[in-house]
Amino acid sequence: MTITLAPVGRVISPRTDTSDDFWGGVESRIELAPDFAAEVFDGIEEFSHVEVVFFFDRVPEDRVERGARHPRGNPDWPRVGIFAQRGKNRPNRLGVSVARLLAREERHLIVRGLDAADGSPVLDIKPVMREFLPGGEIRQPAWCAELMRDYWR
Amino acid sequence: MTITLAPVGRVISPRTDTSDDFWGGVESRIELAPDFAAEVFDGIEEFSHVEVVFFFDRVPEDRVERGARHPRGNPDWPRVGIFAQRGKNRPNRLGVSVARLLAREERHLIVRGLDAADGSPVLDIKPVMREFLPGGEIRQPAWCAELMRDYWR
Repeated sequence: MTITLAPVGRVISPRTDTSDDFWGGVESRIELAPDFAAEVFDGIEEFSHVEVVFFFDRVPEDRVERGARHPRGNPDWPRVGIFAQRGKNRPNRLGVSVARLLAREERHLIVRGLDAADGSPVLDIKPVMREFLPGGEIRQPAWCAELMRDYWR
Repeated sequence: MTITLAPVGRVISPRTDTSDDFWGGVESRIELAPDFAAEVFDGIEEFSHVEVVFFFDRVPEDRVERGARHPRGNPDWPRVGIFAQRGKNRPNRLGVSVARLLAREERHLIVRGLDAADGSPVLDIKPVMREFLPGGEIRQPAWCAELMRDYWR
């Protein structure tokens, strides 16, 4: 069984690399695909954040990890399954990221902190609602904080 | 341009409907697809929550909204674009939900509060890390709280 998707837009970003850090200040835009009317964004400016599902199109298929590995290849961190980490070399190569919505300009969303490289196909855009954030205490292993140290700088 | 994905697992849930409320207490499991080794889940038990990307396979293609509509068809709420709401009848029919991880049993994840119906194809599983949650104040329109009133009950 396969599922075929069509991009609903693409990312226009000053970042053309997919390196792992310093995404916090990046301002980019999401451009709507030509087969959609601009009204698909109506009302989105009332939300402070959007969740963007995108395709890591710069990851070659033969670099996809289908088992376990050290995050970022760093042996200081434990070897964990690809679904226990958020690295981009993952089955189906889907990214899911929250970005701050700065403005909507007709067929574009201007966002800050979207960790997607220029040209990334966008597969979905959802408004962030408080009610869909994780409930209760969040627990995570210590290596995450180390790995994320410079991510949003 | 199209992007072809293959499910990495499927949802096994007591909920066979896709109605819009009362998902909070639902316990379900994610079963890994046979072409993956169980090690893809190694280390995931150190996280309290997982983010699940799934396909709304029960939504017929001709019911997909490609413009704007009142959320849930309710005229009391404003008519907003499909990307300014989280309804399931959306282009590409992708769901992204956070669920509490109760246990990992070899090739299964047991979760609570996953709002995906039985049989839904799972396209990705990511651990929830604090650092990827929205930063700063979250703003959303008033209709969201009304719409979400019974969602997690």
